[in-house]
Amino acid sequence: MTEQALFREAMSHVGAAVSIITTDGEAGRAGMTVSAVCSVTDTPPTLLVCINRNSRSHQTFVQNGVICVNVLNTTHQELSGLFASKADQETRFAHTTWHTGKTGAPVLEDSVVSFDCTIDSISEIGTHSVLFCKVKDITIKADCKALVYFRREYHALGAA
Amino acid sequence: MTEQALFREAMSHVGAAVSIITTDGEAGRAGMTVSAVCSVTDTPPTLLVCINRNSRSHQTFVQNGVICVNVLNTTHQELSGLFASKADQETRFAHTTWHTGKTGAPVLEDSVVSFDCTIDSISEIGTHSVLFCKVKDITIKADCKALVYFRREYHALGAA
Repeated sequence: MTEQALFREAMSHVGAAVSIITTDGEAGRAGMTVSAVCSVTDTPPTLLVCINRNSRSHQTFVQNGVICVNVLNTTHQELSGLFASKADQETRFAHTTWHTGKTGAPVLEDSVVSFDCTIDSISEIGTHSVLFCKVKDITIKADCKALVYFRREYHALGAA
Repeated sequence: MTEQALFREAMSHVGAAVSIITTDGEAGRAGMTVSAVCSVTDTPPTLLVCINRNSRSHQTFVQNGVICVNVLNTTHQELSGLFASKADQETRFAHTTWHTGKTGAPVLEDSVVSFDCTIDSISEIGTHSVLFCKVKDITIKADCKALVYFRREYHALGAA
C-alpha cells in the first residue's frame, strides 16, 4: 500500500459529518460534498474547510469569497452523492429547495445546521486550500438525524 | 444568546470523532481531548488540529514539535473525560497503556487509529492555533466502535 493509500485508509476510520458547501456570486454558483470541516474559534465565530485546488469549483469559491456549509441529515444521502458526482452545477441544485443566505450563498432548506460565511483567509497546504471562514449567519434544525461518513459508509447519528 | 454561544450551539450539531492528542520531548509529556481534527491532503499525508492558545499544554506541543492523534473507541469515554479535566498530566497517563511512537509521542494502545506526526507549520486564527501535522506513522485497529461527540453527548459509530 502506498503512503497515500494508507493515509486515506486510516482517515476512513475517522468519522465525520457530511456537508455540502455552496457559493454564489460574480464567479457563478457552485456546490460540492465535503467532510473536511472543522471548528476553529468562537472569537470571532470561525470554521475551516479543506478543498482540493484541482476541484472544478475551487476557483468559484475563492473568487466569490462566500461559502455556506450545509451539514446534511440522513434524508440527504442521495444529494451527497449528487454533489460528489460529475453532474454539472445546474443539475446539482435542481433537486432540492435552496434559499439565498445573507452572503448570497445557497442555504439548504432542511440542513442539520447551515453556516453562512465569508472567506477570510486561505492557507495553501500541499494539494489543498484551507479556507478560514467567518460565520455571518446560522440556521439550526435540531429535530433530525445527522449523516456521518465512517469506514466508507454512511451512518445515522442522533435521535430523530 | 451571544454570537459566541450561538456558534458553539451550532457546532454541537456537527458530529465529530473524539481524539486524545499527545506529545513528549524536551518540553515534557502532555495530552488533551479534542474534536477539531481534519484531513488536509494525502500528498504528503497531512492533517490539522485546532487547539486554544490558552490551553495549559499548548506550548508543550509547539515546543516538542511532535503530536500523536489517537482516535478513541467507545471504551474510552472515561479517558476522554479525564484528558478534558483539570487532572495533572501524570494522572492522565496513569490509567491506560501507552507506547512510544516513532516521533516520541505517546501512542494509545487500542485506539481506532493513531496518527504519529511532526508539526510542520502553524496558523494563528483568533484565539486558536491550527497545527498542520505531517504523518510519520499510522496504527489502525478496525474491529471496534468509534466514539463520536454530537449534540453534547457521546455516540457509538460502526459495527463492533
